[in-house]
Amino acid sequence: MALNNDSYAALDLGSNSFHLLIARFHEDKLRVIDRHKDMVRLAAGLDNDGRLSDDAQERALASLAKMADRLRSVPPRQIRIVGTNTLRAATNANDFMAKAEAVLGLPINIISGTEEARLVYLGVANDFAPEKQRRLVIDIGGGSTELVIGTNAPRQLESLPMGCVSFSMRYFADGNICDKAFKKAVNAARQMLSPYVEPFRAQWDEAVGSSGTIRSIGKILAEQQLSEAGYISADGLEKLKNQVLAIENNQNLNIPGLSDDRKEVFIGGLAVLYAIFQELDMQGLHVSAYAIREGIVHDLAGRLHHRDKREDTIKQLIIQYGIDSAQGDHVAELCTRLLPAVSAHLNTPESEAEALLRWAAQLHELGLAIAHGGYHKHGAYILGNADMPGFSRQEQARLSFLVANHRRKPKQPSTVTYGVTADWPLVCVLRLSCILYRRRQPKALPESITLENPSADELILSIPEDWLSINPLITADLEDEAELLKKSLGIKLRLESKSG
Amino acid sequence: MALNNDSYAALDLGSNSFHLLIARFHEDKLRVIDRHKDMVRLAAGLDNDGRLSDDAQERALASLAKMADRLRSVPPRQIRIVGTNTLRAATNANDFMAKAEAVLGLPINIISGTEEARLVYLGVANDFAPEKQRRLVIDIGGGSTELVIGTNAPRQLESLPMGCVSFSMRYFADGNICDKAFKKAVNAARQMLSPYVEPFRAQWDEAVGSSGTIRSIGKILAEQQLSEAGYISADGLEKLKNQVLAIENNQNLNIPGLSDDRKEVFIGGLAVLYAIFQELDMQGLHVSAYAIREGIVHDLAGRLHHRDKREDTIKQLIIQYGIDSAQGDHVAELCTRLLPAVSAHLNTPESEAEALLRWAAQLHELGLAIAHGGYHKHGAYILGNADMPGFSRQEQARLSFLVANHRRKPKQPSTVTYGVTADWPLVCVLRLSCILYRRRQPKALPESITLENPSADELILSIPEDWLSINPLITADLEDEAELLKKSLGIKLRLESKSG
Repeated sequence: MALNNDSYAALDLGSNSFHLLIARFHEDKLRVIDRHKDMVRLAAGLDNDGRLSDDAQERALASLAKMADRLRSVPPRQIRIVGTNTLRAATNANDFMAKAEAVLGLPINIISGTEEARLVYLGVANDFAPEKQRRLVIDIGGGSTELVIGTNAPRQLESLPMGCVSFSMRYFADGNICDKAFKKAVNAARQMLSPYVEPFRAQWDEAVGSSGTIRSIGKILAEQQLSEAGYISADGLEKLKNQVLAIENNQNLNIPGLSDDRKEVFIGGLAVLYAIFQELDMQGLHVSAYAIREGIVHDLAGRLHHRDKREDTIKQLIIQYGIDSAQGDHVAELCTRLLPAVSAHLNTPESEAEALLRWAAQLHELGLAIAHGGYHKHGAYILGNADMPGFSRQEQARLSFLVANHRRKPKQPSTVTYGVTADWPLVCVLRLSCILYRRRQPKALPESITLENPSADELILSIPEDWLSINPLITADLEDEAELLKKSLGIKLRLESKSG
Repeated sequence: MALNNDSYAALDLGSNSFHLLIARFHEDKLRVIDRHKDMVRLAAGLDNDGRLSDDAQERALASLAKMADRLRSVPPRQIRIVGTNTLRAATNANDFMAKAEAVLGLPINIISGTEEARLVYLGVANDFAPEKQRRLVIDIGGGSTELVIGTNAPRQLESLPMGCVSFSMRYFADGNICDKAFKKAVNAARQMLSPYVEPFRAQWDEAVGSSGTIRSIGKILAEQQLSEAGYISADGLEKLKNQVLAIENNQNLNIPGLSDDRKEVFIGGLAVLYAIFQELDMQGLHVSAYAIREGIVHDLAGRLHHRDKREDTIKQLIIQYGIDSAQGDHVAELCTRLLPAVSAHLNTPESEAEALLRWAAQLHELGLAIAHGGYHKHGAYILGNADMPGFSRQEQARLSFLVANHRRKPKQPSTVTYGVTADWPLVCVLRLSCILYRRRQPKALPESITLENPSADELILSIPEDWLSINPLITADLEDEAELLKKSLGIKLRLESKSG
């Protein structure tokens, strides 16, 4: 199949369905080329220990094989595959990820709940006219529900662990529908919402809903003329609830507009939406056809055309934690200059390595905001845990690993995150750059400092003789570093002084 | 012995010496009542595994027995006992602390290097006229060296792990003094200093030195008329260095002004001071008779008279991390109101418990600055690691424990810090207060909400009926909490609704 260089693809491995979107841009507007959905019900495959069952994994892998086929027309760098709540939560996610990536031939990015919320907003915003109205966007997924308020950009993001699959399983496990179970589910959702709703209550001009649950409900209400098309009114929702509660089992949910494959998870999603209407005192909700897929495609196209959200996030962290950006930029510039030397021995594609290394360099002093002692560890903690718009979990784990190891004894990552490999040459470049700027010299280092990497465990750092002679302490630091790298990583660092 | 209610005591368990100071205040000026010093050489008792040897422990305990005797005249709340570098570092510090506290009958506070620096500055500042001059204060201890710049208050603090005992042991283990070893020691100290000196270089009008090492050197120079009394000139220091290097072994250091008991650790301290002079391009240093003891006494007197540094630190954290202080204050106020109910079952004195609980309540949302998900853990991480002026390590560990457990499943502290007991009733008061304010109500809760604690594992929370009826979600949260406390801690929480 010929590659279509204009096309972008998003594959969303959701807790209820896997969704594929292939699209291209026409005058900044998204034009859909292909859509595909498989209701895999990944969340239903979680057992009591939080393990994904073999059955669920097989369903998922079969779906991914088909998706992989459709993805062949899209250039790999224009594809982004995203995993959400169930893959965040599953205790054996790493095993599944390895198999899934083998089938896809592409990496899967696990994203946090707030990142999910941001991408949903971005997707739905595509449906908005670019005006100043404040919008509330609600997305009820299989395993989590996202709430976002924003105008052009999101301002307040929440992700709560309640979804149509998990709630159907928890409160209506046997498929029986009764008043009591519904009330219990609604109350549980309201309890979850209540600590977070304050900033969402009446802070918006218009509410928009996304996701299968909300689209189904919209469709049912329209079919029965309980709401106008594309709108869910509080009154219509109340009537639908009464209609549903009069039915005893979800298999009997023969309601016009409800598809067969949604019956099993409909009641849980309805309870969550009903709870949101109550907690937020909502009168109605517009139904959007857009969702996280559209957001992923927009985000990815931005990345490739110099509007990378991750760059904004790095700048934001520099400000929030009061980082000395001159020092960070100096180290980053040197890292970028030395990186090509080691690129042959990396497990990471070079463009990705370049960005990660540059960001780690800009942020390496982040932890000073907590305390001086052990600041590399504090920085690593923040990067491993912060909400970082645009970043996947794996990218954060890799940044965290680099910052943790930019000084002191190099250590393997303490928690294993799938897809995070300890790229020691990358660590070495960062460490050496930090040492060379240890005195926080305001002047850039001589251009003639070079690094070579003749084999994976051998580094040669060449520095002009005259620079070494006026910097005896840095020379001593580099000698100590050579000893440490040898002892900890088996990497031989040779210092060469070169004349003039 | 009669208690002297005007007197304050500081006992500094330093890495080289234990120092006791008993003093009182006369018109805001410190008047010394008693001083005592034992050169215990705690740092010399650290073996290769970082364990305090039995010998060193015995020397220390014998000294503490004498100190305890002298402390009997001082009211216990006006005594503060502080442990520094060696007790921070020793791997078996907890064992020693238990024995030492038993001998003293009082708690030992382990403080961080930056807190040590702050207290040194406070002590030496007592010697200053209160003018606007910028001063650099240097203190070379047995295991660490503190550098501080400030005017009336310290502005820049560093603590580096190099001291007269550790450097004498590391570079002059056999007692032999030679050019090469001295150069090596000086270079090691300069390497340690070099990443930190920039803000200290020429940023001050006057340099002042404290500690036994610096006082000894000052005394020797004065005796030999190499500097004026109370001053160490760069030139005098150079001459002293040459004089010392002409001697082959530290046992032959028969220099006028040098006491016998300092001979063994003199050379390490000299190397550190020499390195500081070089790295900071210093021309001279005034010798102060004051030190950390005086700082501790000032700090303690401040605490007891409404100038508690810790309150400033809490306010500072609220600003730095953008905490919603209205919510924090609401929760803190409720905690303070409910605390007396549980005070009979605490391991902590009530006034201390009150402060810790109030601070934990004010800071419980601290971790939101990192991320929403797991914010109780992020807050606990910050409190466990931040530089918090005025706080001991144990106090920080206890705040961290309270914040970590203010929501979700209660857990034992993950790292054992000596003197940190899991005070579950305190945790329960904080948890209940957070739940009662979960909706971030701007209005204070009814005064008639009360807590009882009939036995250590039983709590009765009474809430007005009408309040419960208009807050069904909080009622449900409290019911969930009762289940969780029973299951996790074996604590029975009973909810009572009372009329009117």
